[in-house]
Amino acid sequence: MKQIAFIGLGHMGAPMAANLLKAGYLLRVFDLVQSAVDGLVPLGASAARSAHDAVDGVDVVITMLPASQHVEGLYLGEQGLLQHIAPGTLVLECSTIAPASARKVHHAAAERRIPMLDAPVSGGVGGAVAGTLTFMVGGDAQVLEKARPIFAAMGRNIFHAGLDGAGQVAKVCNNQLLAILMIGTAESLALGVANGLDPLVLSEIMRRSSGGNWALEVYNPWPGVMENAPASRGYEGGFLSALMAKDLGLAQEAAQLTGNATPLGSLATSLYRLLLKQGFGDKDFSVVQKLFDQGL
Amino acid sequence: MKQIAFIGLGHMGAPMAANLLKAGYLLRVFDLVQSAVDGLVPLGASAARSAHDAVDGVDVVITMLPASQHVEGLYLGEQGLLQHIAPGTLVLECSTIAPASARKVHHAAAERRIPMLDAPVSGGVGGAVAGTLTFMVGGDAQVLEKARPIFAAMGRNIFHAGLDGAGQVAKVCNNQLLAILMIGTAESLALGVANGLDPLVLSEIMRRSSGGNWALEVYNPWPGVMENAPASRGYEGGFLSALMAKDLGLAQEAAQLTGNATPLGSLATSLYRLLLKQGFGDKDFSVVQKLFDQGL
Amino acid sequence: MKQIAFIGLGHMGAPMAANLLKAGYLLRVFDLVQSAVDGLVPLGASAARSAHDAVDGVDVVITMLPASQHVEGLYLGEQGLLQHIAPGTLVLECSTIAPASARKVHHAAAERRIPMLDAPVSGGVGGAVAGTLTFMVGGDAQVLEKARPIFAAMGRNIFHAGLDGAGQVAKVCNNQLLAILMIGTAESLALGVANGLDPLVLSEIMRRSSGGNWALEVYNPWPGVMENAPASRGYEGGFLSALMAKDLGLAQEAAQLTGNATPLGSLATSLYRLLLKQGFGDKDFSVVQKLFDQGL
Amino acid sequence: MKQIAFIGLGHMGAPMAANLLKAGYLLRVFDLVQSAVDGLVPLGASAARSAHDAVDGVDVVITMLPASQHVEGLYLGEQGLLQHIAPGTLVLECSTIAPASARKVHHAAAERRIPMLDAPVSGGVGGAVAGTLTFMVGGDAQVLEKARPIFAAMGRNIFHAGLDGAGQVAKVCNNQLLAILMIGTAESLALGVANGLDPLVLSEIMRRSSGGNWALEVYNPWPGVMENAPASRGYEGGFLSALMAKDLGLAQEAAQLTGNATPLGSLATSLYRLLLKQGFGDKDFSVVQKLFDQGL
Repeated sequence: MKQIAFIGLGHMGAPMAANLLKAGYLLRVFDLVQSAVDGLVPLGASAARSAHDAVDGVDVVITMLPASQHVEGLYLGEQGLLQHIAPGTLVLECSTIAPASARKVHHAAAERRIPMLDAPVSGGVGGAVAGTLTFMVGGDAQVLEKARPIFAAMGRNIFHAGLDGAGQVAKVCNNQLLAILMIGTAESLALGVANGLDPLVLSEIMRRSSGGNWALEVYNPWPGVMENAPASRGYEGGFLSALMAKDLGLAQEAAQLTGNATPLGSLATSLYRLLLKQGFGDKDFSVVQKLFDQGL
Repeated sequence: MKQIAFIGLGHMGAPMAANLLKAGYLLRVFDLVQSAVDGLVPLGASAARSAHDAVDGVDVVITMLPASQHVEGLYLGEQGLLQHIAPGTLVLECSTIAPASARKVHHAAAERRIPMLDAPVSGGVGGAVAGTLTFMVGGDAQVLEKARPIFAAMGRNIFHAGLDGAGQVAKVCNNQLLAILMIGTAESLALGVANGLDPLVLSEIMRRSSGGNWALEVYNPWPGVMENAPASRGYEGGFLSALMAKDLGLAQEAAQLTGNATPLGSLATSLYRLLLKQGFGDKDFSVVQKLFDQGL
Repeated sequence: MKQIAFIGLGHMGAPMAANLLKAGYLLRVFDLVQSAVDGLVPLGASAARSAHDAVDGVDVVITMLPASQHVEGLYLGEQGLLQHIAPGTLVLECSTIAPASARKVHHAAAERRIPMLDAPVSGGVGGAVAGTLTFMVGGDAQVLEKARPIFAAMGRNIFHAGLDGAGQVAKVCNNQLLAILMIGTAESLALGVANGLDPLVLSEIMRRSSGGNWALEVYNPWPGVMENAPASRGYEGGFLSALMAKDLGLAQEAAQLTGNATPLGSLATSLYRLLLKQGFGDKDFSVVQKLFDQGL
Repeated sequence: MKQIAFIGLGHMGAPMAANLLKAGYLLRVFDLVQSAVDGLVPLGASAARSAHDAVDGVDVVITMLPASQHVEGLYLGEQGLLQHIAPGTLVLECSTIAPASARKVHHAAAERRIPMLDAPVSGGVGGAVAGTLTFMVGGDAQVLEKARPIFAAMGRNIFHAGLDGAGQVAKVCNNQLLAILMIGTAESLALGVANGLDPLVLSEIMRRSSGGNWALEVYNPWPGVMENAPASRGYEGGFLSALMAKDLGLAQEAAQLTGNATPLGSLATSLYRLLLKQGFGDKDFSVVQKLFDQGL
């Protein structure tokens, strides 16, 4: 029976930890917010007093934190967690962070002979609760095979993206593309509707033609077209615009490192930042539809 | 047995006419290029000496022309074809043109009590040859029902988009979205590859995640990822950049009429025009990948 | 003493006509809005009952109308004004319209041997009142020399842009560039202020460096930097966003005709259309600053 | 007589150092490229064997390095130059780097009680040679007063942009705006020329109208319009596209820190990166004109 330290029990981390408990793993959990820790204890987790306390003697460390600076701050430096994790312990870093940050942690872990994977997820809170997350994994393939049962307890699709940091790269590329799909779908729907088409009819035509994409398939941004999409419940829930803006920023950081031109991705970044300035940061990211139809 | 006048026998029109012949329709065909007419005669078509001659006494008129000005020039005005088509004759206008132009022809046809449908297609030359085109149809639903067997002889999916001009609107919205999907996919693949990922692995991850779209599914722009895609044969064949640039221009014309903001669609228009200036107009539109990776 | 017919007495036309009266010209004026006509009579104008009535027997016809369709509607066709204007009468078409529309009117005027200039203005209502407009003139250079005193009564700078339609082309190119300057200035100021700079200091540095442009020189979009700019009076007055959006649309029409890529101009068009959807159409176009700083 | 250590003797640093020598300052110079050091000795500089050697006992340290990582690498860390510079020595960091990097060095310098200014320049190699650079200075105003005579020996305009890092912020904001002006001017000229205008006439009209900006004033991107502009000598010399791309990247980094939307700046970044991929990195940045007119 493997013992796992789970650090970072937010909207995503808490249900992921709960699914590991359900699968029979022993968990030591920690979060800076005490109530988040307390919420896991009734499900069988053991509460740690600190991150250092959490990792003491475990076989696996999982972290799920908000951003690059938190991950670097936690693991690196003279007081960093890597100095307290025993060599050979498996580290699964599941936060969505800059590929460059992931590579720094990989490098430091390797120096301490700690096998590590960067494994950001997609699927949102819904997927975390349901245990249907997608993991995009960077690092050694053999290490991934060891970690696979653990990922499988929290998710459904587990992709090996490549070497150190590749999980993060795949994640930011995918989410940049997702933002482009969503905005492109939203502006094309608005164009059609303004020119007299029914949004449902146009959605169906494009979905079954060469305009077909994930947004039209399962996440239509026009209110009322899909009963279960956030658009049909006032853009509540789902994947927040603020998080999309964050991921687009990470894609821009990656593009900056390699000097890549990303004309649509850059424009998508600006459009989501405009949305945030207008107060839509805590709405689902399909709320971008409103930019094109103030009437919605 | 219905008699059909088919005018416009280019790359698309010729195989469409051939499929109608195969289905048993009697065809009178005309094109300004005599060799195009001659090519259809061995298949059973009767050669007309002019457009006016072609439509004389037929039950159905089908046109497949390059652009708005050709369609307006053919049908409208005192010498226009509508003056020579008998009331009650079914007109199927299959060219891809500006919605505003389509509406003009609809209006003039209605005045002459000629039932008309705007019915642009997608699917390219391949679809025209195979008889698997998609028709996006604008006009009266009952008229569409009469025309359905004729469309079915040339295509597979027949969508009723809405009233007069709606077929053209659906087409330009779909193709605008397609251009956005393609560029977004291309720049995201290039970003991932520059950051160390394998294009095939990244394609597969995004295809099965929320970045999934038509380009990743059947038309991957990175050479070698999909054996049958134009990208894997030097971007030859397929749907030409020049035609995509034309369709994007039509979407911009529609946006101009209604004052719609189309940030990604407008940028896609500029990027395809840049490609054309660089001499890629006669390559498949997935050649946009090269903008982001000169090495390809 | 020359007699002039002046048709179109809106915000721009009325003060332009008043300046002609001040300069001693005899004016017959017409507008669809009777009160606009009545307002000019006390200044010495003679009221015409219709456009046809206005042009009867005059030496010069000046028109100042809202958009392409009004100009085409007025001049062209069997009932068009050109059929009622005597050959040799000088026509000065000062509306801002599509170059293609201007060329149509030029063509029809030439057939009737009526010398015509397209002569859109810049300088706004303020310039119209003060008689300091800029005229960008397309058409024959000798015709321009005849018209020069009339333009000089209404404006300060009179540029000969080229042949038929060139005035309109110059106008839309200039206004496209103006929109780009303004948005670029606004987003750069916002970036600097968010990073701790004083907007006045940053404005002054850029104005005197290679970022120098008309907006920083006389029309700073940040409230309070320039006392007399619209930004410092709640973006009231000035050159309305709705008019800028219209001119950007004309630039896009011109780009569509020639297949030009205008990446920044297209994006500017979308951004102004977004502003219009948010209800800022009747504010000065420097209100684009608010997109980048909701706090303003 | 003040003694100055000057580190970084590239295209910009070498002529700046030469001007200081001309003004009578005593210089100890260092560069990793020995020939660069050797070139200054005949002008009166003393050659240092290392950066550490250069700063030993001087009153002022000036650095002019390629990028953030070089500046951070030189000054920071346990072996960093700040550990070898005596408290009270004036440090003038003239490289163009990320504001965040500048602030890191400021912070470390303050801890060692070393007064420092970030003072990036504009004006290019020409300005460096002629001693007409513009300095945009961040840091304490009193420190700037002490440094002013030194800056004055190398440049003409010296702006105090604000506190620590403000010089860098002003520089990236200005250069972002400059890129936007240049692309906007280039695409508007191309649009006008394609629609029949003479580039010189159109340039003059826009320069004197509301499209007026630095590019039209002194740096016209269309070949032949301005005899002395890089465009008229095959886009040789001037301010390289590669450097503009770098500065635009720094602006994007600043925007990322504050979550600013920079739609035109982001698009400009992508367009310059496309230019670089096409091999124009070592041409003057006005070469962007070629994107819009392949014939040039």
